Amino acid sequence: MRQSQLFTKTIKETPKDEVSRNAQLLLRAGFIFKEMAGVYSFLPLGLRVMKRIENIIRDEMNVVGGVEMKTSIMQNKEVWEKSNRWDDKIVDNWFKTKLKNGMEVGLSFTNEETYSNILKQYVSSYKDLPVYPYDFKNIFRNEARSKSGIMRGREFFWKALYSFSKDEKEHIVFYEKMIIAYKKIFDRVGIGSSTYLTYALGGTFSKFSHEFQTVCEAGEDIIYIQKDDYGKGLNVKLGHAAINKDIYTDDFKKDLGLKGNFEEKKAVEVGNIFTLGTKFSEPFDLKYKDAKGEDKMVFMGSYGIGLGRLMGTIVELNSDKDGIIWPAEVAPFLVHLISLKKNEQANKIYEEIKKAGVDVLYDDRENVSAGEKFAEADLIGCPYRLVLSEKTLAKGSVEVKKRSEKEAKMVKISELVNWLISKQ
Amino acid sequence: MRQSQLFTKTIKETPKDEVSRNAQLLLRAGFIFKEMAGVYSFLPLGLRVMKRIENIIRDEMNVVGGVEMKTSIMQNKEVWEKSNRWDDKIVDNWFKTKLKNGMEVGLSFTNEETYSNILKQYVSSYKDLPVYPYDFKNIFRNEARSKSGIMRGREFFWKALYSFSKDEKEHIVFYEKMIIAYKKIFDRVGIGSSTYLTYALGGTFSKFSHEFQTVCEAGEDIIYIQKDDYGKGLNVKLGHAAINKDIYTDDFKKDLGLKGNFEEKKAVEVGNIFTLGTKFSEPFDLKYKDAKGEDKMVFMGSYGIGLGRLMGTIVELNSDKDGIIWPAEVAPFLVHLISLKKNEQANKIYEEIKKAGVDVLYDDRENVSAGEKFAEADLIGCPYRLVLSEKTLAKGSVEVKKRSEKEAKMVKISELVNWLISKQ
Repeated sequence: MRQSQLFTKTIKETPKDEVSRNAQLLLRAGFIFKEMAGVYSFLPLGLRVMKRIENIIRDEMNVVGGVEMKTSIMQNKEVWEKSNRWDDKIVDNWFKTKLKNGMEVGLSFTNEETYSNILKQYVSSYKDLPVYPYDFKNIFRNEARSKSGIMRGREFFWKALYSFSKDEKEHIVFYEKMIIAYKKIFDRVGIGSSTYLTYALGGTFSKFSHEFQTVCEAGEDIIYIQKDDYGKGLNVKLGHAAINKDIYTDDFKKDLGLKGNFEEKKAVEVGNIFTLGTKFSEPFDLKYKDAKGEDKMVFMGSYGIGLGRLMGTIVELNSDKDGIIWPAEVAPFLVHLISLKKNEQANKIYEEIKKAGVDVLYDDRENVSAGEKFAEADLIGCPYRLVLSEKTLAKGSVEVKKRSEKEAKMVKISELVNWLISKQ
Repeated sequence: MRQSQLFTKTIKETPKDEVSRNAQLLLRAGFIFKEMAGVYSFLPLGLRVMKRIENIIRDEMNVVGGVEMKTSIMQNKEVWEKSNRWDDKIVDNWFKTKLKNGMEVGLSFTNEETYSNILKQYVSSYKDLPVYPYDFKNIFRNEARSKSGIMRGREFFWKALYSFSKDEKEHIVFYEKMIIAYKKIFDRVGIGSSTYLTYALGGTFSKFSHEFQTVCEAGEDIIYIQKDDYGKGLNVKLGHAAINKDIYTDDFKKDLGLKGNFEEKKAVEVGNIFTLGTKFSEPFDLKYKDAKGEDKMVFMGSYGIGLGRLMGTIVELNSDKDGIIWPAEVAPFLVHLISLKKNEQANKIYEEIKKAGVDVLYDDRENVSAGEKFAEADLIGCPYRLVLSEKTLAKGSVEVKKRSEKEAKMVKISELVNWLISKQ
């Protein structure tokens, strides 16, 4: 894309009302626009990152047999009354509104009831199970405060998958597949090495649930990582060695068979997986006839990832004083091509890179200084910066600098496209 | 996709509370799920159609230089007060809700203010213009009644593009490009030959606006088509010959220089394009410095398409007594492969078709009769039905029937994949 087509501009000053680093950088670089506290619009650069994250998650959900749908945001009171989660005294972060006829409706704050209600219409036999529907949608939570930028929004974009299995045994097989799918997702978006699978508090049907927690100073959670057994990296074995603060007690540790020294770290919950059992299938009478013709309750699980939070976490982990440093797999563009002179050559190289299928942002603006262009490129944070100037052209080359490195090098124009393809 | 992975089933009975044919068919075939009047969830088959429509629209928006973003659903009162459209007395179909601190917020019912407010931050010079941002998002309108299925929802999925030009002259060039882009969209989704560009009532800055109206019995609008000059098909010339009812008067006809006989038809508004002029740039003080350094107001236009309405219209126009007949470009799958016998051969053919990149729904269910499978395939409405039975296998062939035709024919298994690729 030509930068002249992109209407956003970078901003030098840090926005006064933003305390979180992710929002400061994303606002200054023109990825997001603040509508109000906890509510952001995604500008073209921001949407490109979100779509890349979304596609990675979709890939991995499809690998485990997920089937995508799109549930409504408006929610029917009658549906949520079945599970006793309509009342504001029980769920205190609903956003609600009213139809003309006075009927109250809610805005989705989660999806368990929505899914159970839909599945009730279709599931009747053991032949209908298991199924793994999921969707990407906007979720609304009426948070009292919202100061973490896009890491805890009042409106946010979310992937939720629910598993509907015949029994606990079938459920566990899928649950473990999802652990591996989540590990792949966090690896692919570039935060795998800082992300731990932790034990967290369970619910009615399981003593423990699991979260994926990314170690990060901006995190609102505290986790304890067993130092002795294992270092960095995601542990997908069943013998986990990271624990959320809420269950970091001697009793729980004993239950988990964990000993030794633990290190306290601030962390962000980037994903959670939860065994729901029959908590929702019971109120929705979501049952099936087994092979013998007997009625059984469907056994459920839930698996969520907030995409805005994930994007915010990636920024928190990948920046320096000059701006963002996007991991290649989620970068808005792989390449930021900067022309320091109006010339045919730059246009030609831009077209060639585009034609090769490499995502490129082309700074084709005139009357903007080299220093300003470089500062903007650093703030936006594409993985590779290419500079074309009279000096580089004299050598038949382009100057290439990786955003995460200090040193630049020259690449022959004739070899550029193949070199870029190898970096995708 | 294997039908066993798809959790939805077809329903024989017509839902009692649905009067519109589009919703009846889409509910019965498992494309949508009714959450409440005017609010539907899109099940896997329905989402596949929506995504195909979305991709066609995105293609054409990118061709004219559009740049995609994603604005928030929650809207800030202060922003809408600037243009005097916050008050329920002025806009009577807002959905509103409240933050914990009592602050009112609205749910997007349109996007003019949202866009003007964002662009205000970035536009300052003539060099920043023109720009054409757009997004796909859920829109909420508190309709008193909602009986047209997915053709008039309280919550619906929408594409809106806004053009920001330096002046009226630049605006008109783009406006005419959009007419052609819209024509391409309606042609590509299969309703071009029933869709007319009509004159409709304008606003402050233009005597007329334009709508794209599709002739359809279920339509809520009335249009008048000039019979003498022209037959079916979309007229993108500036001498239009179709008029909305609201301006079908002698005065307006005289203004438009239209004479002769007009035919009255029911129609659905599937798209609209509107010259906004400075109606919104003025309250938002959205101005720029021209080349001489003088302040000028940005000149705006708006261009909307409701994707649910478009999908509903396609169904209204493309069905028979047995079900839906999807145009190939928006079909959930090009091919519905039905195996009437459990066999390795069907699995093999399914894998080959998938590998060739052809979208195929594979009815791999056992213990379901041929009659039932055929009825379901007709209801779902994929363009091609392939049947594999002992009889066809004996001839090394597959029976192929086009959904829109009565007669089936045999295609050799060895030639099947190439034959299907030619039909994509």
